[in-house]
Amino acid sequence: VLVVLSGGTGGAKLIEGLSREVPAADLFIVGNTGDDFLFHGLHVSPDLDTIAYTLAGIADPEKGWGIAGDTFVVLERLARYGAEDWFRIGDRDFATHIRRTELLGRGLTLSQVTAELARALGVEAAIVPMSDQRVETRLCTPAGELGFQEYFVKRRWQDEVESIVFAGAERSAPAPGVLAAIARAEAIVIGPSNPLTSIGPILAVPGIRTALREAASPVIAVSPIAGGAALSGPAHRLLESAGLEPSPLGVARAYADFVDTLLIDRQDASLEGPIAALGVEPHATDIRMPDLAAKRRLARLVLEVAGL
Amino acid sequence: VLVVLSGGTGGAKLIEGLSREVPAADLFIVGNTGDDFLFHGLHVSPDLDTIAYTLAGIADPEKGWGIAGDTFVVLERLARYGAEDWFRIGDRDFATHIRRTELLGRGLTLSQVTAELARALGVEAAIVPMSDQRVETRLCTPAGELGFQEYFVKRRWQDEVESIVFAGAERSAPAPGVLAAIARAEAIVIGPSNPLTSIGPILAVPGIRTALREAASPVIAVSPIAGGAALSGPAHRLLESAGLEPSPLGVARAYADFVDTLLIDRQDASLEGPIAALGVEPHATDIRMPDLAAKRRLARLVLEVAGL
Repeated sequence: VLVVLSGGTGGAKLIEGLSREVPAADLFIVGNTGDDFLFHGLHVSPDLDTIAYTLAGIADPEKGWGIAGDTFVVLERLARYGAEDWFRIGDRDFATHIRRTELLGRGLTLSQVTAELARALGVEAAIVPMSDQRVETRLCTPAGELGFQEYFVKRRWQDEVESIVFAGAERSAPAPGVLAAIARAEAIVIGPSNPLTSIGPILAVPGIRTALREAASPVIAVSPIAGGAALSGPAHRLLESAGLEPSPLGVARAYADFVDTLLIDRQDASLEGPIAALGVEPHATDIRMPDLAAKRRLARLVLEVAGL
Repeated sequence: VLVVLSGGTGGAKLIEGLSREVPAADLFIVGNTGDDFLFHGLHVSPDLDTIAYTLAGIADPEKGWGIAGDTFVVLERLARYGAEDWFRIGDRDFATHIRRTELLGRGLTLSQVTAELARALGVEAAIVPMSDQRVETRLCTPAGELGFQEYFVKRRWQDEVESIVFAGAERSAPAPGVLAAIARAEAIVIGPSNPLTSIGPILAVPGIRTALREAASPVIAVSPIAGGAALSGPAHRLLESAGLEPSPLGVARAYADFVDTLLIDRQDASLEGPIAALGVEPHATDIRMPDLAAKRRLARLVLEVAGL
């Protein structure tokens, strides 16, 4: 089994590549749920859905979220009713959130619901939330404390972030199977996701970080930053505000206690020395994934580094 | 003010006619919520919505429910997720239920939510649920106790109905303004709705039936049955199973304690004697409303009988 820790967009690209290189049933994906939120009373799990839609082959390749070709009739009507529409949910996507909310309301856990939705979409890989308990990524800014989607989507990550809180993390537990999968994995992959707001919430669930440190298998991370800027989103800014370098070196520092190898971009090759000094083996390559060929190439390299 | 007690389809047709004959702001419509139910975790109020959509000019004239030209993307996806799809909710319609559920979840009453949705749709008439408390129409059949939509839509009213229960009615109260509107009305109209499952739940809310009996203004009902069969739905069958004649005479008997005048179809003119014997004044006319002209004509007749 290959365990992948992942946020949304960037992680999903690597997962798409991996799913073409190993049998789907061998993938055990631990998804970030710190971004989950209630929108119009519905439970939205943006990262879990991006991963599921990607593996189901229905993700929107342009936008990086949602379902390809989706329509927005429901959202337009909701806006007419005075509801907020800054988070764009398409009609097909709404069905996912309606179904998830209904099943959670019946008492199913988020793991069970996520498995059920993935099965219905024909996804064979295991997609598992980091926890069945609610852990909420909150960003403390001069404008006040913001939920992740409010910071990221509504306010377009323009606020200065003073600190990040994972509300509820201390009372949470890893979802069933997560610790066992990490312990038994042939390799563990940390996707090219935001270290602080995508991988950070997963690591904040008690037990997961320790399990990664103690795992016998190789742990390989892919940098979400190349040449001083995130491949997408605000990773560089958040690293800086956390007192870390806005570069693969900051990523290495954030992961130094459990990552063996960090894939970085060739343009950051000058950081190989400082990264190695942290006890993390750097591996320079082309980490951008503009198309399926690049996704598969990077996935093969990850597997090769893992010795698989 | 003209108070109208109404279920869905038939009542909405008369309301449409009335809204063309009196200022919309003079209409105070008390809607049946005994059919309300949770579908996919969303609070659906079929009769309130049919009335609101009709007055907003967006109702589907063919189907008698939903919004004209609506699409069914969400429902199709929900079915793929294994959710039930026997109750047909279009995408625009889904937005109504999502918004209602969200606002109820925030602690607003059903009256407040209904007023808010109507306002957003540009409806000037007051649309008020019979009660802010949950009153659920349950039908006892040989197949067990069924919710109204299960009986009516899912099982196409084929079950024999042994009795009807309005669960929760004894603990309910009329929604704010209902009793005052009845007391002060210039006239009260009972729409051509099912006496047992559309008007019955309204009458089951403590205080409403007494207020109707005591109202000084004329109370005019329109028969939902012509020539032995309901204009739509199972009214004739339900009257029979309740031990009442499946005809305007049964309707008159169900309403005899508070209705002054009953508009019946010309083909039922032979029942004028028996109806009058119940203390209800029969008025034979053409009660079918196939088009707007017929709706307006019947509305004008109702106003005329009311002396308005």
